[in-house]
Amino acid sequence: MIAEVVAIGDELLHGALLDTNSKYVAGRLEQVGAVVHRFTVVGDEPGALEAVLAEACARADVVVTTGGLGPTLDDRTRDVAAQLCGGPLVFDEASWNGILEWFARHLRKVPDSNRRQAMLPPGGAALPNAVGTAPGFRVRIGRAELFAVPGVPSEMRVMLQEHVLPALAARPDCTPTVQRWLRVLGPSEAALGERIESFMVPGRDPAVGVTASGGLLTVRIVATAADRAAAEAKCDATAAELRPLLGDWLFAEGERELPELVCERFAAAGRTLAFAESCTGGLLAARLTDVAGASAVLRGGVVAYANEAKQDLLGVDPALLERHGAVSEPVVAAMAEGARRRFGADVAVATSGIAGPAGGTPDKPVGTVCFAVADAAGTRAWTSRIAALGRAFVRDRAVFEVWRALLGWPDGV
Amino acid sequence: MIAEVVAIGDELLHGALLDTNSKYVAGRLEQVGAVVHRFTVVGDEPGALEAVLAEACARADVVVTTGGLGPTLDDRTRDVAAQLCGGPLVFDEASWNGILEWFARHLRKVPDSNRRQAMLPPGGAALPNAVGTAPGFRVRIGRAELFAVPGVPSEMRVMLQEHVLPALAARPDCTPTVQRWLRVLGPSEAALGERIESFMVPGRDPAVGVTASGGLLTVRIVATAADRAAAEAKCDATAAELRPLLGDWLFAEGERELPELVCERFAAAGRTLAFAESCTGGLLAARLTDVAGASAVLRGGVVAYANEAKQDLLGVDPALLERHGAVSEPVVAAMAEGARRRFGADVAVATSGIAGPAGGTPDKPVGTVCFAVADAAGTRAWTSRIAALGRAFVRDRAVFEVWRALLGWPDGV
Repeated sequence: MIAEVVAIGDELLHGALLDTNSKYVAGRLEQVGAVVHRFTVVGDEPGALEAVLAEACARADVVVTTGGLGPTLDDRTRDVAAQLCGGPLVFDEASWNGILEWFARHLRKVPDSNRRQAMLPPGGAALPNAVGTAPGFRVRIGRAELFAVPGVPSEMRVMLQEHVLPALAARPDCTPTVQRWLRVLGPSEAALGERIESFMVPGRDPAVGVTASGGLLTVRIVATAADRAAAEAKCDATAAELRPLLGDWLFAEGERELPELVCERFAAAGRTLAFAESCTGGLLAARLTDVAGASAVLRGGVVAYANEAKQDLLGVDPALLERHGAVSEPVVAAMAEGARRRFGADVAVATSGIAGPAGGTPDKPVGTVCFAVADAAGTRAWTSRIAALGRAFVRDRAVFEVWRALLGWPDGV
Repeated sequence: MIAEVVAIGDELLHGALLDTNSKYVAGRLEQVGAVVHRFTVVGDEPGALEAVLAEACARADVVVTTGGLGPTLDDRTRDVAAQLCGGPLVFDEASWNGILEWFARHLRKVPDSNRRQAMLPPGGAALPNAVGTAPGFRVRIGRAELFAVPGVPSEMRVMLQEHVLPALAARPDCTPTVQRWLRVLGPSEAALGERIESFMVPGRDPAVGVTASGGLLTVRIVATAADRAAAEAKCDATAAELRPLLGDWLFAEGERELPELVCERFAAAGRTLAFAESCTGGLLAARLTDVAGASAVLRGGVVAYANEAKQDLLGVDPALLERHGAVSEPVVAAMAEGARRRFGADVAVATSGIAGPAGGTPDKPVGTVCFAVADAAGTRAWTSRIAALGRAFVRDRAVFEVWRALLGWPDGV
């Protein structure tokens, strides 16, 4: 079952909005056995949109589109699909009733333009939208079954789950794909690639690849098999061969994001966390609190940009700041201890560094970041020289280093 | 000058990494006059990659690819480009010397596999990489000039700026594109669409479109003209017609992100900021400190998830918490006043709310968020009922509401 994902909207092409939907859709499609070959992002211009949809529907068995279903005139997915089906749009009473109910529940007047959202391409079936006004639809075009869902991520996710995935799972041409992610921090991408070179040959089954993101390297294993259990067994076997080669570089496994793993680990141990952030500026807290249920783990955090904040809120001795400077192991250790005390947390982490572009010195160039972890057993501080590949890179790499420390805690810290 | 952008890598197709490069590349290409028609994301499988590149090079005048230039065997952009050029890869001495220098500067041994990165397709020219090991290349394929740059965002950005954009700006077929973004908070997308319906017709010049993201609506004006000044004048004229229709809904203009505008406004006024975050959990601080130079504006912040943190770090009276609960205007006002005092900031903002999925009550359903802004003139608190479209939506919408308040401060708060 070959699949393609198409994201529709001028705002995606012209820099106003990042397409996060295609990645999400592809991940879910692969879980039910589709093999995703391509994403395309195209604007609202009807000619370009028609070409993209016609091509995708000729190449793939399943095409999922996101976007272009809104009530405004620049939303044209319905019209273009109707054109490819060779007929005019058809008014769907049930969809219109769903839209009326949504507006009634939200105590709003229904704008006339929402009527456009109740139209379907000929031969299509509506996909009801439980969380928004825009219904989606499914329709056969060429070789493919096309599913059109809205571009608003929260609506797209619900509709994918409720309508698209069950329809695909029921198809006879499912070939489940399973992934394993091995998270690595330490070597360069090339050094890692050499170490596992024999795994990265074209056509290997399962496929093994390396991804770099903000200094974090991810070794991905992707296996396809007739059923899910067989694909998982193939992944497990390859992971077992890779582990001894990765050694100390390997610090986490699993298809979930690192903040989720940290939350899960601390929640399971009944331990709480606090942060004292300087150069990461709230990123640690923001990423952890993205996880639902983070409130059971995170007591709180301080973003201490100014030295006065380090003294007043975290109780850092001004003499330490004077003697060692804000980016130093003694200061970051005092920040972590202060945060642990102030928040009454079991474990506290502190960061202080020079994210750039300005602020570097010969002694402490841009990319110098000091870390500390404080717990009941004591405090450990260390310094990393992160490659000065931009402010975002330094901050991201520092955040990954904290997740690694926390996933290794208390043994690996 | 029609352009397409191609992002290459299994990790992008298979959910390990989000393609943020294509959006960035497209934005920069349009600034020098390219009209971007399509993005494609494709994996490392040579057959699929060859098909995508051949098609793009047949449709567009300029194709920019990101990714697939690394030293590992799953990086195949060079090989596939060589195949499309009809010959084997050629070793480029100058590129190899650049790689040797990079490793010497970083005091690392050169892995043999990096030699792959010094190979060029026949007829191609190397694009030196000043910030990483992977050089890029440019080569003519079919109708198009193809530029291949690395997928690591920091390297991609520098190489685009130094090599790709100057080459395009020198072409005679430049047609500069200019954008204006009008930021709107308040109406539904449909209600906004109806108000400006007459602007959103296909073929209008400049084009006008609406984008929804986390509750923020952006009205985009996109104009193309023979020169930049003419395109800007067209955008300005359309913006002037739209402003009276948008009225109070409109709260910011400009093609930059809102945190940048907030930083700029506060820096210009010589005012400082502090945050006390509960439901936004560090997002306000993290987004503001993404902006280089935020340290001149942000004194610091507290992420006060636990009630004890609200009392101990922000001095919130326990009786207030007892009487009104953490999600209430009196508590959020006390949080803002506490943060202003503790950080010695001119203005402090506090948030407290129920981001979900759990924690809602009939009185205070998921999506209820209380805000306060404290300054020398006093404190103003208010409550919003944000649509319960998921944790990320509620948090994002709350952050947008703070940027709106700060951009309106002191008049509009």
